[in-house]
Amino acid sequence: MRCRKCGEKAVINMRQHRLSLCKQHYLEWLPNHVMKLIEKYEMFSEHDHILVAVSGGKDSLALWDILWKLGFHTEGLYINLGIDAKIAYSNRSMKFAHEFAVQRNLPLHIADIKRDYGESIREISARTRRGRDKPCSLCGLIKRHIMNRFALDGQYDVLVTAHNLDDEAAILLANTLDWSLEFLARGEPVLPSKPGFLKKVKPFSRTYEREAAAYAILRNIEYMRDECPFSIDSKQLYYKKYLNEWEENRPGIKLRFYLNYLSAIANGAFPTRQESAGQLAQQRCPQCGQPTNTGSLCAFCKLFDEI
Amino acid sequence: MRCRKCGEKAVINMRQHRLSLCKQHYLEWLPNHVMKLIEKYEMFSEHDHILVAVSGGKDSLALWDILWKLGFHTEGLYINLGIDAKIAYSNRSMKFAHEFAVQRNLPLHIADIKRDYGESIREISARTRRGRDKPCSLCGLIKRHIMNRFALDGQYDVLVTAHNLDDEAAILLANTLDWSLEFLARGEPVLPSKPGFLKKVKPFSRTYEREAAAYAILRNIEYMRDECPFSIDSKQLYYKKYLNEWEENRPGIKLRFYLNYLSAIANGAFPTRQESAGQLAQQRCPQCGQPTNTGSLCAFCKLFDEI
Repeated sequence: MRCRKCGEKAVINMRQHRLSLCKQHYLEWLPNHVMKLIEKYEMFSEHDHILVAVSGGKDSLALWDILWKLGFHTEGLYINLGIDAKIAYSNRSMKFAHEFAVQRNLPLHIADIKRDYGESIREISARTRRGRDKPCSLCGLIKRHIMNRFALDGQYDVLVTAHNLDDEAAILLANTLDWSLEFLARGEPVLPSKPGFLKKVKPFSRTYEREAAAYAILRNIEYMRDECPFSIDSKQLYYKKYLNEWEENRPGIKLRFYLNYLSAIANGAFPTRQESAGQLAQQRCPQCGQPTNTGSLCAFCKLFDEI
Repeated sequence: MRCRKCGEKAVINMRQHRLSLCKQHYLEWLPNHVMKLIEKYEMFSEHDHILVAVSGGKDSLALWDILWKLGFHTEGLYINLGIDAKIAYSNRSMKFAHEFAVQRNLPLHIADIKRDYGESIREISARTRRGRDKPCSLCGLIKRHIMNRFALDGQYDVLVTAHNLDDEAAILLANTLDWSLEFLARGEPVLPSKPGFLKKVKPFSRTYEREAAAYAILRNIEYMRDECPFSIDSKQLYYKKYLNEWEENRPGIKLRFYLNYLSAIANGAFPTRQESAGQLAQQRCPQCGQPTNTGSLCAFCKLFDEI
């Protein structure tokens, strides 16, 4: 397997693009590939003040590295959920994010739910109905709330998350099996800002997980390799397994699944999304002031109302 | 495992309905279950002249038996595609359909593509680009064309096909992975009649494959047990395997996937379907007179235009 650009030994073969590249050309190619998507969707520009959500894993550190190399003005946010489970998961992940930021002289902010709200995610999930004693079911809710609040308070222009194509395809498959129109209506790589919500973008949404991992390894980025110990309950991981099997048999199926879905939205599928956006703009949580469509406490504040 | 109705030994446990039944109560339950769907969707009434597409397999013979027991006025149509592949697949299947009809004194019509068009499906697929030497890719096209033509010529009120829930869920999954809005817009169990198209209904669309098989076996219906020798190329069978695995882990997931999809359609998820119906009504194939949206020969007549 040879690099298509220079004929040297390739380090990666991307079957869905029919493209093999050597280390040097891959490390050039991926940032260009990401930059094209940033431009195509007008995600942000060099004038923007960008907040990157970082977990200490390969995706967020690889993406942050790329944005840094591309010259964007970024700061990081690490959310410490207090996950221990005998492997000090949260603290070790935070250390990777911290070292990455220090090496590049980039600002990293830390939100810590144990410090700020008095409980770890495990404790909250054990106490609440919504948590059902499964921390995994609260993770997205808590992270979204904290990221959005932090980004609004800090007057950033845009919030970047490092969801990769494998994440997006797995979430899409799970949402499709449920046909939850509300979720299906907001799977695009850019969620525009609206009252109470910062603009959210996913520059890695066409980057396969293995491409992000290859980039991190080739750039010698130290990252957290363990899966979250609570992810055994994760729907997303459950469906990733199947998408991987299909990808083996039909290279590119994940990318086509996701891109065809974006075309379907563009062609008028899921038109209800406008209404739900309208509703959201009007109603605010009396506790934290963030938007909610329940008419009372938002889902996050409800977690602490049950105490 | 005991029958919920009488406490006798159960012959089937339907986890998605949390219902176990003995032979007698199952043979009562399934026709009632089907009848409820017929009524809910106003599929047809006792005054209608019904054409049932029969393949000689468990689904179509079980369904025809149920419609016959329920007192509907039905005739069968068997389409002989000339599939041999050393096991005389088509002729053996036809024999099962024929014996079933004779035993119940029901009319069975035979369409034979070798007789009527001079070639078997294998021969057509070997000769045509569309066939790509894979008969499986032509099967649906040919059967739909012949069924629709036969049903219109015979002035039936409605065409019944025996697609079961496993079929519908697998087709839905394949169509969703492609996000083909045209197909996603017409997955409902009733396709109303429109100019050039007979009303088409699927009374088995909420009946699991194993429920249809159990019914056929308990009623001592002899049916073709072999899979079609060409189905190795079938996308539908490929995805059925995964849906079966998910169903094992999450009983009822096939049913929920299908029902939530029907709700999504009802909630306006695929608003383009009205337009495509409008287009179809206007254009006709100059060869056979059936509707087509290509503006020239329909896909079926094109197969014979390449000779």
